[in-house]
Amino acid sequence: VICSVRCITFTTDFGTQDWFVGTMKGVVQSLAPRTNSVDLTHEIPPGDIRAGAFALAVSYAFFPRDTIHVAIVDPGVGTSRGAIAVRTDHYVFLGPDNGVLSWALSRERVRAVHTLENRRYFLPEVSSTFHGRDVFAPVAARLSTGFPLKELGPARADFIRLDWPEPTLSRRGIQGEVLYIDRFGNAITNIAARHLTSLPRNPTIFLRKKRLCAVAATYQSVPFGSPVAMVGSSGFLEIAIHGGSAAQRLRLRRGMRIDVRNRLPDPSRSTTNRR
Amino acid sequence: VICSVRCITFTTDFGTQDWFVGTMKGVVQSLAPRTNSVDLTHEIPPGDIRAGAFALAVSYAFFPRDTIHVAIVDPGVGTSRGAIAVRTDHYVFLGPDNGVLSWALSRERVRAVHTLENRRYFLPEVSSTFHGRDVFAPVAARLSTGFPLKELGPARADFIRLDWPEPTLSRRGIQGEVLYIDRFGNAITNIAARHLTSLPRNPTIFLRKKRLCAVAATYQSVPFGSPVAMVGSSGFLEIAIHGGSAAQRLRLRRGMRIDVRNRLPDPSRSTTNRR
Amino acid sequence: VICSVRCITFTTDFGTQDWFVGTMKGVVQSLAPRTNSVDLTHEIPPGDIRAGAFALAVSYAFFPRDTIHVAIVDPGVGTSRGAIAVRTDHYVFLGPDNGVLSWALSRERVRAVHTLENRRYFLPEVSSTFHGRDVFAPVAARLSTGFPLKELGPARADFIRLDWPEPTLSRRGIQGEVLYIDRFGNAITNIAARHLTSLPRNPTIFLRKKRLCAVAATYQSVPFGSPVAMVGSSGFLEIAIHGGSAAQRLRLRRGMRIDVRNRLPDPSRSTTNRR
Repeated sequence: VICSVRCITFTTDFGTQDWFVGTMKGVVQSLAPRTNSVDLTHEIPPGDIRAGAFALAVSYAFFPRDTIHVAIVDPGVGTSRGAIAVRTDHYVFLGPDNGVLSWALSRERVRAVHTLENRRYFLPEVSSTFHGRDVFAPVAARLSTGFPLKELGPARADFIRLDWPEPTLSRRGIQGEVLYIDRFGNAITNIAARHLTSLPRNPTIFLRKKRLCAVAATYQSVPFGSPVAMVGSSGFLEIAIHGGSAAQRLRLRRGMRIDVRNRLPDPSRSTTNRR
Repeated sequence: VICSVRCITFTTDFGTQDWFVGTMKGVVQSLAPRTNSVDLTHEIPPGDIRAGAFALAVSYAFFPRDTIHVAIVDPGVGTSRGAIAVRTDHYVFLGPDNGVLSWALSRERVRAVHTLENRRYFLPEVSSTFHGRDVFAPVAARLSTGFPLKELGPARADFIRLDWPEPTLSRRGIQGEVLYIDRFGNAITNIAARHLTSLPRNPTIFLRKKRLCAVAATYQSVPFGSPVAMVGSSGFLEIAIHGGSAAQRLRLRRGMRIDVRNRLPDPSRSTTNRR
Repeated sequence: VICSVRCITFTTDFGTQDWFVGTMKGVVQSLAPRTNSVDLTHEIPPGDIRAGAFALAVSYAFFPRDTIHVAIVDPGVGTSRGAIAVRTDHYVFLGPDNGVLSWALSRERVRAVHTLENRRYFLPEVSSTFHGRDVFAPVAARLSTGFPLKELGPARADFIRLDWPEPTLSRRGIQGEVLYIDRFGNAITNIAARHLTSLPRNPTIFLRKKRLCAVAATYQSVPFGSPVAMVGSSGFLEIAIHGGSAAQRLRLRRGMRIDVRNRLPDPSRSTTNRR
């Protein structure tokens, strides 16, 4: 091989204002000095498991084979919730067994799941509030140096999975929802590119039962300041404002309903006597 | 050579709350595992090309020779705006052709400019919203492993340049403006150290036509809480408050006029009959 | 040895919105391309030496031996305040001599203290506002390549130490204070685990002279939304809210008094005739 550098990614809600992330990297550096620690993000809202699961699911595949992905959004830290290491065909995933890994794992073929129980591979003292530093960082570091997964603890058959909010497809169109709002204020929905292909005509977006915009190819397809919907870089339909924040301007929030309909009015509706 | 580690820097408006920056590093790591990705900053205000251009211009020269500087502030992503790779005597610069590279390039001797057109060096699928991940990261990674610039696309003679707001020098002094406000609330102006040497006496700063402060050597030259002007670490005159935020306290904004005058009142003014 | 990779950590108040941190890494990369720069945090509140000292003190020991820890919270930059390099049994510490290193150093055995005076090891031009880039980064980089400490400048006997606010122990309990508020809104006090062992019964926390909560083992020991106190990952008693921000909900601020008392009412008080 050209290069033996292994990579560990971190997806957490630890923020960057304190020393939490830095100390995890110190632990990795101590145990695996040649391993490369990469921040996916540490700005997952505190305790927001679904946001962490989404961030990991849309990113992990851009890393090299054998990367160890660590996701720690862990409101149950210190309780008896399990912690798991999961090997798939291409990666290892590490995190609390609360679903934060599950949306990524649903895209992979799972080879083995092990519970993190062998305290020999943790730091000597494990705090009850910072398993990122005391459990996950040392285990990730050791895995990155070739340590076998099965030494970590007993194998198990399964892990906790979060529901994925599948959109509803009907003759009238697609009913989806906002899954994630990004830094630009773009609202990423659960409507995938493949769902749109099921529609016979160029589709139109409805928000709060009112027509919002058409589906376009770029932000610039509409005038500056206008709403636009397009399949974004995560493979999902996004609602955006050309040059602005859709979340702010349209008061979008996660979970809000987004409808995609055919451009023409629904025939059953157009025949309705509105009087 | 002692070391073959190449360096890629990123200057973007992607923020750090999402997975955008992390996935770019994943792409680099996949294609060039020994290359070192360094964040210049990802907090350029969304779409603010001038802020990105300034950040790059005052920083790039502190990196080792052959560093690949990637700057992505790209409100036109997905349109037909060009993307360019520019080789100078010491560095390679990569970004959209919208001026974001131009203030750095104006300080360098340009050797070659190529348009990024050869899709073979992009990721297999290029989204319309995230060229950082799909175009710039893979191209930067490949350049860092020695890939020749000319393979990327056709050479071109020039690139888009942003105006640089040159201060106005006159017998009465210098008329400049605020270029950038930093995290401490210091206001960096377009008045360079060399402009100040043209003044015959110790200069005085005027804001909103009122005397603000003298030019000093350190923040501590004035009492705590007082305004002070000094040549900062970027080589430009900065307006600061000792121990506070000048931007907040003096309500400074980018583009605001800053005058530097000789300490004595202008003779033509002192003879004015104010009654 | 398995690996010669040296590590430099940075703890600063520079923030990440500008290019400051990136340029420091550029300087390190230029002078020591194989050295690994790690961010501890750059979000120390501007000029807050005590917050920087605390962040460093609770983190430095998680890094490998011979790591060079650079802490720059430096409101006196540009004045005649000294800058020091300190070698301890396991690490090197670098920073302004204003106390920012002192809480970490109080946990280490100090071997040598040198003033940074030899300008040959700085960047050729030293600005008066950014010693992080012009002094500390090049010195740290050179130390990381094996450069001897004593070349930096004359040895000195001592350095400036910040007071550590030791809690007051009495028969009635412990009187401590809030030292640091973290990203989750947890309030870290100066009451260490060992202080709690001095109490004869399970202790109770008092805030503003009112009973707040008991000391527990995990956040989840109390109902969602309730206050809880526990020894956190830094080894100090922390006040938290299960699933919320204690700082916000309880209006906690640094320096606020926190009392730990025995669970039973104080006998002298229970006999008081309150009429």
